[in-house]
Amino acid sequence: MAKEGADMTEETQFMIDTNPGKEPEHVESSGDAKEMRAVVLAGFGGLNKLRVTKKAMPEPHDGEVKIRVKACGLNFLDLMVRQGSIDNPPKLPIVPGFECSGIVESVGENTAGFEIGDRVMAFVNYNAWAEVVCTPADFVYKMPEEMSFAEAAAFSLNFVAAYMMLFEVANLREGMSVLVHSAGGGVGQAVAQLCSTVPNVTVFGIASCSKHAAIRDSVTHLFDRNVDYMQEVQKISPEGVDIVLDCLCGENTAKGLTLLRPLGTYILYGASNMVTGETKSFFSFAKSWWQVEKVNPIKLYEENKVIAGFSLLNLLFKHGKCNLVKSVMDKLLCLFDQKKIKPVVDSLWALEEVKEAMQRIHDRGNVGKLILDVEKSPTPLMASDSTETSEAGEEEEEPEGDNDSKERMPFIH
Amino acid sequence: MAKEGADMTEETQFMIDTNPGKEPEHVESSGDAKEMRAVVLAGFGGLNKLRVTKKAMPEPHDGEVKIRVKACGLNFLDLMVRQGSIDNPPKLPIVPGFECSGIVESVGENTAGFEIGDRVMAFVNYNAWAEVVCTPADFVYKMPEEMSFAEAAAFSLNFVAAYMMLFEVANLREGMSVLVHSAGGGVGQAVAQLCSTVPNVTVFGIASCSKHAAIRDSVTHLFDRNVDYMQEVQKISPEGVDIVLDCLCGENTAKGLTLLRPLGTYILYGASNMVTGETKSFFSFAKSWWQVEKVNPIKLYEENKVIAGFSLLNLLFKHGKCNLVKSVMDKLLCLFDQKKIKPVVDSLWALEEVKEAMQRIHDRGNVGKLILDVEKSPTPLMASDSTETSEAGEEEEEPEGDNDSKERMPFIH
Repeated sequence: MAKEGADMTEETQFMIDTNPGKEPEHVESSGDAKEMRAVVLAGFGGLNKLRVTKKAMPEPHDGEVKIRVKACGLNFLDLMVRQGSIDNPPKLPIVPGFECSGIVESVGENTAGFEIGDRVMAFVNYNAWAEVVCTPADFVYKMPEEMSFAEAAAFSLNFVAAYMMLFEVANLREGMSVLVHSAGGGVGQAVAQLCSTVPNVTVFGIASCSKHAAIRDSVTHLFDRNVDYMQEVQKISPEGVDIVLDCLCGENTAKGLTLLRPLGTYILYGASNMVTGETKSFFSFAKSWWQVEKVNPIKLYEENKVIAGFSLLNLLFKHGKCNLVKSVMDKLLCLFDQKKIKPVVDSLWALEEVKEAMQRIHDRGNVGKLILDVEKSPTPLMASDSTETSEAGEEEEEPEGDNDSKERMPFIH
Repeated sequence: MAKEGADMTEETQFMIDTNPGKEPEHVESSGDAKEMRAVVLAGFGGLNKLRVTKKAMPEPHDGEVKIRVKACGLNFLDLMVRQGSIDNPPKLPIVPGFECSGIVESVGENTAGFEIGDRVMAFVNYNAWAEVVCTPADFVYKMPEEMSFAEAAAFSLNFVAAYMMLFEVANLREGMSVLVHSAGGGVGQAVAQLCSTVPNVTVFGIASCSKHAAIRDSVTHLFDRNVDYMQEVQKISPEGVDIVLDCLCGENTAKGLTLLRPLGTYILYGASNMVTGETKSFFSFAKSWWQVEKVNPIKLYEENKVIAGFSLLNLLFKHGKCNLVKSVMDKLLCLFDQKKIKPVVDSLWALEEVKEAMQRIHDRGNVGKLILDVEKSPTPLMASDSTETSEAGEEEEEPEGDNDSKERMPFIH
């Protein structure tokens, strides 16, 4: 695994910055087979650090599969990467993106099981937001016939993460209760669906009021993220809950631990509270890190509680657990075939619309997954728009928040 | 549960100090049915805080079973209680002891399933080290015919704790690896036996050299507690281990977390490093508490690790999980009937020998469980002894450590 990781880094270095020219946005896919369109992150910061440009086409190394990308998943983690708010941020510039779906275009040596033309979904250690990616065959899975490319790009990360947290880390069983933050997001919706495959599981969901109508049926109890959810949960379940899934961190960690019943498990799987409207540097991340409330093991002992962290990408790309993830994916594809689970796609966006898509995640406007549809043309700007979105190369910070007037209408799936 | 707990406290207040007279050691069981012998802890501190005295006989309340005690389990936790090194130490004086076996002598109302004469083992929220105890029927279990009273007193706490940590908290499965500190102790031996019921589980045991010959066959790899076990384990298993069971706390917490492989679980189930030869007060415990290295949840997230605390007594007496514990006991009794597990008894001691027994646990001389045998007469002191063991009422601190010359020979089972 370590060797493969090193190769990927060289690959990345090779792929990017071969066309550092000015204003490459809205470049059309050319007939030149050696080039491809890709989203590039030029520096850590606001939306203006992203641009679409032409890059050299990657070719598969030994053990890799080359995929003509149809759709890519956009995750909250991508915003954290953009802001540099992650531990060990990558060396820039880089093509972001950790998951995609598409068609196998060629294969390297030692990629038994894959053939040109296969419809696949894949994890990628960066580089997913491009017309073509190469990734080790260990991270590639064949798509069911009934699954669309958009669904496949919405499936891998969210469902594998949700499944592993519920069943590998926390051992969800009949009659248990689960509290999930961001119940309307991609992982939240996957959690709700997977909980429904186990008898008599109570799901407490927390989400912005604006999403309540859309997701009310997916959970047992739904709370506004702005109310005192602890009190509400304790009213319904004075003993607390068995599993808390937290992607926010910060003050929610202490609340989550308090809400656990004995033998309950709190799982931190993200830290989206660390992303704000401001540009974040690695140093501000480090500061947030230290501000997180630390847990005394003796307190866990007194209270019979379990606290866990879960990062699927680290599991795949740092910890070498691709075989375990493969076995989980097999189980998930069974559940999909049985129509017990189905990825929820919020909206589709062209590569050139990645800024608007990120803004929508930042504003927590999505229900389910945002997808970058590589073959989609950008939707024309709304008539009310008076300016273009900020261009690459612009140096001013672009405030994230109330810039509705600049937004394109998303293509709602 | 709360009500029952309150009743127990009153009961305790009532039971003790009815005979505060001087020098009650070596009191014989009298014919008077209203009195009984019991070990009493008069103050937090050294061995001299313990004495055997006569107490008023308890009678069962509604829902309680009255047991004529045959054998009691002695645990490291009892040393912590004696020193006051636990959170919320009890109001003194108190009769220590959390588990016993014996014969049902009478039953209160609402104790369906138990009859006079039943051979039983039971958890007790203090008060176990006496000739008679009353405890709620929820904490009483019928003994298998093939089990001796000493085995039963060695069974409940160690095997239930080991089972719940391995299978409820950590989800032990085929092919996993487990590291257990104090592999020669009661819980350690139970862990080793339960691991052998799952195919292909590797057990790394850590124990004093003096125990190695006795326990070598019970574990896969055995290390001296004084060597750098981290390095040794990493040599054999560079990826680390799946489950770490730690009853020591302190620096072992950080080491245990480091040794975990991704998705692995560290479980703290005791803090015996907090007991030293010195008398401990609540304040020194509080100090130790704050000195324990705290865990940043984000670090768990980066590393995909799980940290858990497990206290069976809190689960039973504070957290109301007696039904869950009952179901675990049923599974364990099945394994006992199938001869897959068998409690390891280190030695039997008279109530009057409780100080020597505690010294043996303190010195980590035991392999398996120490039992107080209520019907046993004290073994005569060794010829080399020039003084009696310290008497009740003595105020000097008795140094724990090298007082071999005072020890009686234990009755080795």
